Amino acid sequence: MIQILLSASPACRARYEAPLRRALDAAGLRHVLFSECDDPASVDYIVFAPGGPVTDFSPFRRAKAVLSLWAGVERIVSNPTLTQPLIRMVNPGMTEGMVEWVTGHVLRHHLGTDAHVCRKTPEWNPIIPPLARERRVSVLGLGILGSACARALAALNFDVAGWSRSAKTIARVRCLHGDAGLTEALERADILVLLLPLTSETENLLNARRLALLPRGAVIVNPGRGPLIDDDALLAALDRGHLGHATLDVFRREPLPGDHPFWHHPRVTVTPHVASDSRPEHAARAIAENIRRGERGKPFRDLVDRTAGY
Amino acid sequence: MIQILLSASPACRARYEAPLRRALDAAGLRHVLFSECDDPASVDYIVFAPGGPVTDFSPFRRAKAVLSLWAGVERIVSNPTLTQPLIRMVNPGMTEGMVEWVTGHVLRHHLGTDAHVCRKTPEWNPIIPPLARERRVSVLGLGILGSACARALAALNFDVAGWSRSAKTIARVRCLHGDAGLTEALERADILVLLLPLTSETENLLNARRLALLPRGAVIVNPGRGPLIDDDALLAALDRGHLGHATLDVFRREPLPGDHPFWHHPRVTVTPHVASDSRPEHAARAIAENIRRGERGKPFRDLVDRTAGY
Repeated sequence: MIQILLSASPACRARYEAPLRRALDAAGLRHVLFSECDDPASVDYIVFAPGGPVTDFSPFRRAKAVLSLWAGVERIVSNPTLTQPLIRMVNPGMTEGMVEWVTGHVLRHHLGTDAHVCRKTPEWNPIIPPLARERRVSVLGLGILGSACARALAALNFDVAGWSRSAKTIARVRCLHGDAGLTEALERADILVLLLPLTSETENLLNARRLALLPRGAVIVNPGRGPLIDDDALLAALDRGHLGHATLDVFRREPLPGDHPFWHHPRVTVTPHVASDSRPEHAARAIAENIRRGERGKPFRDLVDRTAGY
Repeated sequence: MIQILLSASPACRARYEAPLRRALDAAGLRHVLFSECDDPASVDYIVFAPGGPVTDFSPFRRAKAVLSLWAGVERIVSNPTLTQPLIRMVNPGMTEGMVEWVTGHVLRHHLGTDAHVCRKTPEWNPIIPPLARERRVSVLGLGILGSACARALAALNFDVAGWSRSAKTIARVRCLHGDAGLTEALERADILVLLLPLTSETENLLNARRLALLPRGAVIVNPGRGPLIDDDALLAALDRGHLGHATLDVFRREPLPGDHPFWHHPRVTVTPHVASDSRPEHAARAIAENIRRGERGKPFRDLVDRTAGY
């Protein structure tokens, strides 16, 4: 019997417990799934989200892997007691949801739909936007989510560049990397999409100096992580009219506090961390598949590079 | 010298005249382009949009074709004096623009972005939408524009059906036709996109009876032609909560009169006929290409079927 500890907040446990059992059964894995344990040394796998009982991984001496329910692992990877292999969440539903959210908001800014959606008084003022092929979008971060979004935007004819730490190749996407690449990605971006992992190197990457590299009127779309942007620098760039708009799905504190200026800024759209979520049944399948691999002695998928931090 | 009459409103003439000359020159066509003429019998081609001087086509005895600047030809095709071949506007920019507008508004409704874009007070209420693969979109009309939109929506994983008068085949799109097909297309549509031509058969196609076939909460997106929908039946279906929303780009009267209830209805979004427009340089190239074909004795492209009306 495989011993699996689900360590997560009560709300999270309630969502994931039944789908996990179903997926483990479907994968033919005889298991015991529990959310509290007296004998850490007996645990084979830890399914993990922040907010649960486990904060010290050192007593779990036999655990073969810690499987994150979340794609972003910045709150786990920095835990000094974690020595077990760490697996981040990757699943098709999460990628599809992100592509849909990013494509929808990029098209929203491209087409200028807010003017029509929020119009208060009758005004027939037809302004035809340029074609997508004339609109330059830069995607920072070309991991699984960033690459999928870059491809979907290119398929809609947007003029897409992508930037990542190391060099990549994606059809129809101008792939940039390194410091010079970042400058080029920013300088060309009518619309900038942030899908970088949060690490010590990417925290506040979008500071005042880099925001100033964006063309006047540029729009920022951030479904990645809140701390990628220096909030005060962003507000200043919006206030002085350098940036046209920011659509933000992630924040330093979530829920975003009710008195945060983002809520009332006319050039900020707040969405409540909905860009992509692990659908529990998809996440459960991804976790069952990795446990199956572990039990058969095969290498895990979606392992986190502890040095890189993602 | 090819004699070409540009008959259109002054505003339209101002947009198209220079691009037309450039495109005709680029195609190597020696021509005279004029917007008024004393000798109709000398005219070889008429480039046409409603609102210009020509309402009677019978004196243009030598004209080889009437080339519409618009995709919708319902205001020309019904003219009893028109005996010349009629060519509607088809060009890549127009198709791309339509795909972008339709995809953007379908994603807007799919994701429920209006709730965030128009939010007045802070409210952190994360509701994750279903995936596109769980959202059924029906596209009525599978001409060049409808097919392109159906394909783009299917590429984003939407569960797409299309309906047309005659049977068609499009990869990843469930193609329906005929009366039974229309019922099925309506009954399954979470989001309904209208891209039919306006003919005597499609006028008021979306009447009270057919609107009632849509599932409760369905959304209508109409970038086709205003009279495809019975306005009063639409308002009634919205008012009683049967329909969730209507995003309308086209109307029986344009500009939409300031006192029309669509402007103030909380479940209607009005866009001012911006879904797709002929970019003048693209339209001019399409027209020059057809004139080149006419001069070489080749068959015209994009001829209107006068019996079908489109």
